[in-house]
Amino acid sequence: MRPEFVTLYEVGPRDGLQAETAMVSTADKIALIDRLSATGLSYIEAASFVSPKWVPQMGDAAEVMAGISRSHKISYPTLTPNLTGYYAARAAGANVVAIFGAASETFSRKNINCSVAESVERFGAVCDQACDDGIDVRGYVSCVLGCPYEGAVDPAAVADLAQIMLEMGCYQVSLGDTIGVGTPADVAKLLDVVTARISSDKLAVHFHDTYGQALANILTSLDYGIATIDSSVGGLGGCPYAPGASGNVATEDVLYMLNGLGMETGVDLAKVVDAAWFISGVLGRPPRSKVGQAMRPR
Amino acid sequence: MRPEFVTLYEVGPRDGLQAETAMVSTADKIALIDRLSATGLSYIEAASFVSPKWVPQMGDAAEVMAGISRSHKISYPTLTPNLTGYYAARAAGANVVAIFGAASETFSRKNINCSVAESVERFGAVCDQACDDGIDVRGYVSCVLGCPYEGAVDPAAVADLAQIMLEMGCYQVSLGDTIGVGTPADVAKLLDVVTARISSDKLAVHFHDTYGQALANILTSLDYGIATIDSSVGGLGGCPYAPGASGNVATEDVLYMLNGLGMETGVDLAKVVDAAWFISGVLGRPPRSKVGQAMRPR
Repeated sequence: MRPEFVTLYEVGPRDGLQAETAMVSTADKIALIDRLSATGLSYIEAASFVSPKWVPQMGDAAEVMAGISRSHKISYPTLTPNLTGYYAARAAGANVVAIFGAASETFSRKNINCSVAESVERFGAVCDQACDDGIDVRGYVSCVLGCPYEGAVDPAAVADLAQIMLEMGCYQVSLGDTIGVGTPADVAKLLDVVTARISSDKLAVHFHDTYGQALANILTSLDYGIATIDSSVGGLGGCPYAPGASGNVATEDVLYMLNGLGMETGVDLAKVVDAAWFISGVLGRPPRSKVGQAMRPR
Repeated sequence: MRPEFVTLYEVGPRDGLQAETAMVSTADKIALIDRLSATGLSYIEAASFVSPKWVPQMGDAAEVMAGISRSHKISYPTLTPNLTGYYAARAAGANVVAIFGAASETFSRKNINCSVAESVERFGAVCDQACDDGIDVRGYVSCVLGCPYEGAVDPAAVADLAQIMLEMGCYQVSLGDTIGVGTPADVAKLLDVVTARISSDKLAVHFHDTYGQALANILTSLDYGIATIDSSVGGLGGCPYAPGASGNVATEDVLYMLNGLGMETGVDLAKVVDAAWFISGVLGRPPRSKVGQAMRPR
């Protein structure tokens, strides 16, 4: 049941840096992405085409996309919340874009300023245009194991939104425990419901390590046949709902486990650790990853 | 197969503080143990009766044992490497003692200055005397998933030593991944061999989170029916083989997962987090646990 090959979908330059309080220069973002491009990763989420009014950290998305050394073997997805963002991403040469919804009504309103139904309309417009342009779209469903405002989230609501995204044309939907509260039992309950309706090869999982549960949750997800794991080099990111807490699960921690499990990824652990130390140095702190600290380059 | 009740065996005051570079005062050790006594924990490893020449951090073992407010519901095991240490522990009122062996010959020689066979002789003397005195003995087997000198360790060697310890009279043997290198696949390989020869209710697991694998490894161990988990409040401890890296898995991280899995422990998470912040304050840093940071007391 467990997959033999796992795709690591790197979110550090986008989801990670977006949640860091420190501003990182365009040159350092480009240097990070170029280092990641040399690790064997095939997906590196590079930027977010959102209004810089809301997310100032991502205001240089076009410059980042123009500055990186792109490999034809690697996709560099960008987040595009609406058609305006989509057109900017297309102009910047994005070949994969991502839309970001929530399984929780309150989170949707607070985070993307619209209801879940309204978000679906916006996503539809992006998907239709991307389909015409031959650009792949990835869907994110956030708050899949809990919402900072509503608490528990119904697995059926997650499955509903994921299914809508796939019907709109998304090639994959990533299920995100945005606030990192879930444990393996919650993951099993969620995936029991979701994989009954959606094939596991259309799904990815996206865990935050806020409560240290991410690797145990990933292990459980692998048992459901999920073969794409979102992760963030150096554990880049944070959690606005738990100041001081960890953010995204670290790519190197996930990779260490996958290597131990004998799963192929095509990604070089030592090079990921190097990239983690590079960007952590820019941020003036050590990596927020166990493997990063244990394998510190000499 | 998974247990309904899990015993958390707290090792922070002993294994944790022993591996911290900072010296902690006797008063602060006593305050830590008293706080832990109020959490619902039933085993709190309190001290080590080893030569202060080798482990200066534990030189006040007798004072600690004399100073803590003992509850009759709680065991306060102490480490006793030999008869000298055993007599001192008995004089200090220990009702459980622990012996510490290694599945790796080189580690045994470097860490406890004798061969595995010689260590077994010493343990036998302690077990015989403890049996006469009506004092329980717990066995530790270290390096079960890897040795810093020898690399891979044969699961059969682990099972051999564990079996010898049980035959000597140990009520339980704790299997320790001393350097934290194992992943869930290694745990499964080990427990396949060990539980074929030893009932899981005689076993505990002891993971270090050096590479972030501890919770995933514990999840795997629960699937083998292991119902005693060693952990360390605040993630106290370190790893001398990977400077800067994490030590013991944090009690609060384990407890958060067990709570989520619906397993009973009798331990109060918020009180453990309080104790983690207390001792981390003494050490002048935040807890090395994700849950400790996410649930920081206001």
